[in-house]
Amino acid sequence: MTELSTSAARAARTHGTVRIVGAGLLGSSIGHALSALGVDVALDDTSPAQLRLAVDYGAGRVARPDDRPSLIVVAVPPDVTADVIERELAAHPGVVVTDVASVKLEPFQTLQGRDVDLTHYIGSHPLAGRERGGAISARADIFVGRPWVVCRDGDTSAADLAVVEGLALDLGATPIEMAPDEHDRAVALTSHVPQLVASLLAGRFPDAPDGALRLAGQGVRDTTRIAASAPELWVQILGANAAPVVDVLDALAADLTRVSDALRAPDAPGARRTVADTIRRGNEGVELLPGKHGQNRRFEQIVVMVDDTPGQLGRLFGELGELEVNVEDLRLEHSPRAQFGLAEISVEPTAVRRAVDGLEARGWKIASTTND
Amino acid sequence: MTELSTSAARAARTHGTVRIVGAGLLGSSIGHALSALGVDVALDDTSPAQLRLAVDYGAGRVARPDDRPSLIVVAVPPDVTADVIERELAAHPGVVVTDVASVKLEPFQTLQGRDVDLTHYIGSHPLAGRERGGAISARADIFVGRPWVVCRDGDTSAADLAVVEGLALDLGATPIEMAPDEHDRAVALTSHVPQLVASLLAGRFPDAPDGALRLAGQGVRDTTRIAASAPELWVQILGANAAPVVDVLDALAADLTRVSDALRAPDAPGARRTVADTIRRGNEGVELLPGKHGQNRRFEQIVVMVDDTPGQLGRLFGELGELEVNVEDLRLEHSPRAQFGLAEISVEPTAVRRAVDGLEARGWKIASTTND
Repeated sequence: MTELSTSAARAARTHGTVRIVGAGLLGSSIGHALSALGVDVALDDTSPAQLRLAVDYGAGRVARPDDRPSLIVVAVPPDVTADVIERELAAHPGVVVTDVASVKLEPFQTLQGRDVDLTHYIGSHPLAGRERGGAISARADIFVGRPWVVCRDGDTSAADLAVVEGLALDLGATPIEMAPDEHDRAVALTSHVPQLVASLLAGRFPDAPDGALRLAGQGVRDTTRIAASAPELWVQILGANAAPVVDVLDALAADLTRVSDALRAPDAPGARRTVADTIRRGNEGVELLPGKHGQNRRFEQIVVMVDDTPGQLGRLFGELGELEVNVEDLRLEHSPRAQFGLAEISVEPTAVRRAVDGLEARGWKIASTTND
Repeated sequence: MTELSTSAARAARTHGTVRIVGAGLLGSSIGHALSALGVDVALDDTSPAQLRLAVDYGAGRVARPDDRPSLIVVAVPPDVTADVIERELAAHPGVVVTDVASVKLEPFQTLQGRDVDLTHYIGSHPLAGRERGGAISARADIFVGRPWVVCRDGDTSAADLAVVEGLALDLGATPIEMAPDEHDRAVALTSHVPQLVASLLAGRFPDAPDGALRLAGQGVRDTTRIAASAPELWVQILGANAAPVVDVLDALAADLTRVSDALRAPDAPGARRTVADTIRRGNEGVELLPGKHGQNRRFEQIVVMVDDTPGQLGRLFGELGELEVNVEDLRLEHSPRAQFGLAEISVEPTAVRRAVDGLEARGWKIASTTND
């Protein structure tokens, strides 16, 4: 029995019917993933159009009044999350209710303030998303390999916790237990302030001197990519997590003033060192991030020149297949004015020699490899 | 006669010998590109090891005292750029000297202050680079499709200007004429401040609460990617362009304080609007950037599910070739725990239907397309 089918069997056994309130990107994606595991998914949404789309795309069926869910997932915008959690807890006594909102303390405190019985509520937050929102962009695999924060408290039973952590595991995510305030401070640093920083930096571009932006390259494009995010959602998120965000912003503003003063008076004692330390500390910080960078370090990169004609990539990957080289990651650099592109291929270190020799023997031009 | 050979003929005719001082990433890359066009490239570097590497990799030959260059390219670190320009102008009277340093006003003013005859000096700056430096990372194609700023002044003759702009064109870059101060203000905004912002943000990570960075995702990774840059070079660049950088930092600090105050007092008049405007203005700003984003908008994206086994990408691209679909850009999402990856393929809008229908007919599962 494969890992996947064990997991599917467990999901079907554990969940019975899962009720998902909110058929946007996250709700529908959870629906797709659970449906693929054979779980009965009952979808609800205040927008009939969104609900219809989610059902048409295969995220689940329309919820019925007589549904008896074993788990309820609230996946609605932050400003209505507490209200919907309260309503679902009242309508389905004894059933575990979780939410997937990206701020955890505010809804929890709001519900506590209303004296709602939170015994069966466990807040959670899958760190997953896509640039495009809505049921139409939903995809079963967006949780795979991502962290899924689960906020237990003193009241939480082991059985209820297992239901929510089981949901995360069934969707391929890694459950991480955190307190709500601990979660909120973490995402202030790793998500909310980066969003503001990208927005503030990109927000200087409309005032740029004539022609200045022609000089923009990949660095500034990466630094500001998430500035394209939707204002409605972010106003809610930042508002709900204001205190931790302000703490990080204040620290950042102090650092910024320090380096700005150092550049203003470069001959002042320690000024050059302040600038150097800023860059060096950034080096250290970026090394601490998990994920892509770290993962890629496991692989070697080979850059192959590829003619810009149909079929060339096919030949390249076909021949890599013949060489039994598995491509772990891949970037294509394609300049509009050049007659060729560069394919940067990540492979296991043990496969580099085989790939390079084999490709060169077949006439490919290797522009570089990581261990040049 | 193809465009390339016309250009090569022009390069050989125009340049005779090109002397390149500094065989690092930029100098060696220019050497590779010119050598490929048949130009005689004479390389010089204070480091014999670097020079030997550059020659071994094919960037040119070792310079000789009796070289009679028609063009000199200074590609040395910022802190010695002015000295080397002065020396080259003195050693080769009448020969056009350009440099490729990323700050343009400071070396120009330094040389003016020394009463150097700058008639044949034309500062320039190719907006090109790679994450890795040195002769070993040099590549002939890094200038293709990139802007190459050329700083003429009142003394510059049309003939001298044509030599430097011809160099840019021969390397596939687009020459852009700018005044030195105009260039420096532009790169402060599009390169130097983004570097500092990425460094300052990543610089908060070493102080992150325990476990917080586990929640980092692609957004913060992109925002801080360039924080991995080398401190030595950046201390020089920021020091040489301090005034324009400080202007942008001051504006950014004021914007940051405004949004921070709004989050601190969300019920103050206009507070919510300040937060929304920050995100919205970031939306506008990021849309103004040229390049990748803009280019990609020309194309439609198709996301195809690909089994994580050797040969699958080969089959995919082979079949796209059979369908006469040219792949313009390509991203592979590969989750370590999943048994499949997602290949996001950019194609001409007119090819979407053909690609999707053809792939589905051949059994591929299409996860999404841009115009879903």
